[in-house]
Amino acid sequence: MESLVIRKGKKEDIPQVFNLVKELSIFEKAEEKVANTIERMEMEGFGDNPAFKFFVAEVNGQIVGMALYYFSYSTWKGRSLYIDDLIVTEAFRKKGIGDQLFQKVFEVAKKEKCGKIHWQVLDWNTPAINYYKKLGAEFDGEWINCAITSDKY
Amino acid sequence: MESLVIRKGKKEDIPQVFNLVKELSIFEKAEEKVANTIERMEMEGFGDNPAFKFFVAEVNGQIVGMALYYFSYSTWKGRSLYIDDLIVTEAFRKKGIGDQLFQKVFEVAKKEKCGKIHWQVLDWNTPAINYYKKLGAEFDGEWINCAITSDKY
Repeated sequence: MESLVIRKGKKEDIPQVFNLVKELSIFEKAEEKVANTIERMEMEGFGDNPAFKFFVAEVNGQIVGMALYYFSYSTWKGRSLYIDDLIVTEAFRKKGIGDQLFQKVFEVAKKEKCGKIHWQVLDWNTPAINYYKKLGAEFDGEWINCAITSDKY
Repeated sequence: MESLVIRKGKKEDIPQVFNLVKELSIFEKAEEKVANTIERMEMEGFGDNPAFKFFVAEVNGQIVGMALYYFSYSTWKGRSLYIDDLIVTEAFRKKGIGDQLFQKVFEVAKKEKCGKIHWQVLDWNTPAINYYKKLGAEFDGEWINCAITSDKY
């Protein structure tokens, strides 16, 4: 793992990043919910008004992990940072790559004076929950996600 | 209610908007979690890089409701819109003001080609859940909120 590099994501990383998104969606038993595409991510993540930012973890030129985030807002905590996905591909887990990705995101949140960093975890994903506990995360299962997809408005 | 106006929020609306945030936090039994301030909201919501946008519902010059949102990102659905708070003060509920606020947010999401609009509800807030069902919302209680506050990173 000497060649591990954590760096900002570039447009040409999107195809590999999208593969990680698909891998995680299969683990999360929700592959059919992925309506996004490589082309859409390339368009929305770059240009005048990028909708997200991301870091990648690269080993020998292969992207083995990523953290994708955007700036959110909490009327309770002020400007905040939301991590939509933080993924390390299965073969490269338990090597501290997730820690390094989180660390990069922490640095951004500090620099941007964010009141909190937040994300979500599936209630049955015990390994992830235990990992987040070690990071010092607080959990709140009292809130339910509500969504209206674009076909309904 | 002839004088009801739904319009974009301005900086000078923030003190009244913050009162609505406090009112809702008391109902949600979480008043002590509000670390935000009027000054911080004024700074973060305006200027070069506004962290949120909002609509207000105004009756005779008094702000009786608001919807505060920002653009989010979902690796599954693409560019999306998150409603952090949609509040109608108690005395003005059941008059269709919430519908009109949602309608304005729907228009923004359409214009910006958002894949979904999303928000959260407390699992015991049955009146809100029933209202969101009528709007066509889907609910997903399988996800748990995780957060690290700024004192820990």
